Amino acid sequence: MTTHIILGSDHGGYDLKESLKEGLSQNSEITLEDMGTFSTESVDYPDIADTVAQTVLAKNTVGILCCGTGIGISIRANRYKGIRAAVIFNEFTAEMAKKHNNANILCLGGRTTPAENALEYVKIWLKHDFEGDRHLRRVEKLDV
Amino acid sequence: MTTHIILGSDHGGYDLKESLKEGLSQNSEITLEDMGTFSTESVDYPDIADTVAQTVLAKNTVGILCCGTGIGISIRANRYKGIRAAVIFNEFTAEMAKKHNNANILCLGGRTTPAENALEYVKIWLKHDFEGDRHLRRVEKLDV
Repeated sequence: MTTHIILGSDHGGYDLKESLKEGLSQNSEITLEDMGTFSTESVDYPDIADTVAQTVLAKNTVGILCCGTGIGISIRANRYKGIRAAVIFNEFTAEMAKKHNNANILCLGGRTTPAENALEYVKIWLKHDFEGDRHLRRVEKLDV
Repeated sequence: MTTHIILGSDHGGYDLKESLKEGLSQNSEITLEDMGTFSTESVDYPDIADTVAQTVLAKNTVGILCCGTGIGISIRANRYKGIRAAVIFNEFTAEMAKKHNNANILCLGGRTTPAENALEYVKIWLKHDFEGDRHLRRVEKLDV
């Protein structure tokens, strides 16, 4: 089954987004859609978060957002009901973001996470399944 | 100037919350208000996020939320306009969360961050100032 991933970043996450795009494009089961930014020129992360969050919801798919730390862009994405944007920073949080939180957007920091690590975290998130059960009850409470 | 900090956690963040409460209580410039949970019995992190986010907004102060990874509880807290809940995981993100994002809630993971590290991150966040300027424009866009 193909996974369609919406990508977005500000200038601080641009290089990381480009690296992830290159790495993920090697996987024939992944299709990518890049919503920008398309250079290292300064932009405002909430604008990118809006575009990616709205597209993830409209297409019922998943996304990856990068800024300097992943924090700012996660705050704006989580303003949207239905979005579960997870700031992840190691293998464990990549796994838990899917198994417990059913995250549909991963947030990564260009100034905090080397590209090769980030790619590994994305792969971990993709390969795990949401556990449901008590975690489903909690995820449902995110959008009450 | 005294800083009033609203604390909250689920069962996965309970021990970390208790350790932070103990550590922060040594500082005479900090007052603490613990909104629970008060044991390691299983609870739903969105409920705690609601209580702390609403109290932070009502009292115009700051808070700390702990769950297993900090992720789930951050998603719910960020549903509230005016809340900037930052998942932090090292000294750098603690500093950026204040300087660039003006975070008013820190989110920490009981399963990801040792208590002594978490206390250090909270102190870093407290001692830095928001930089304003272009970061103010971005923070304002979080609540448009």
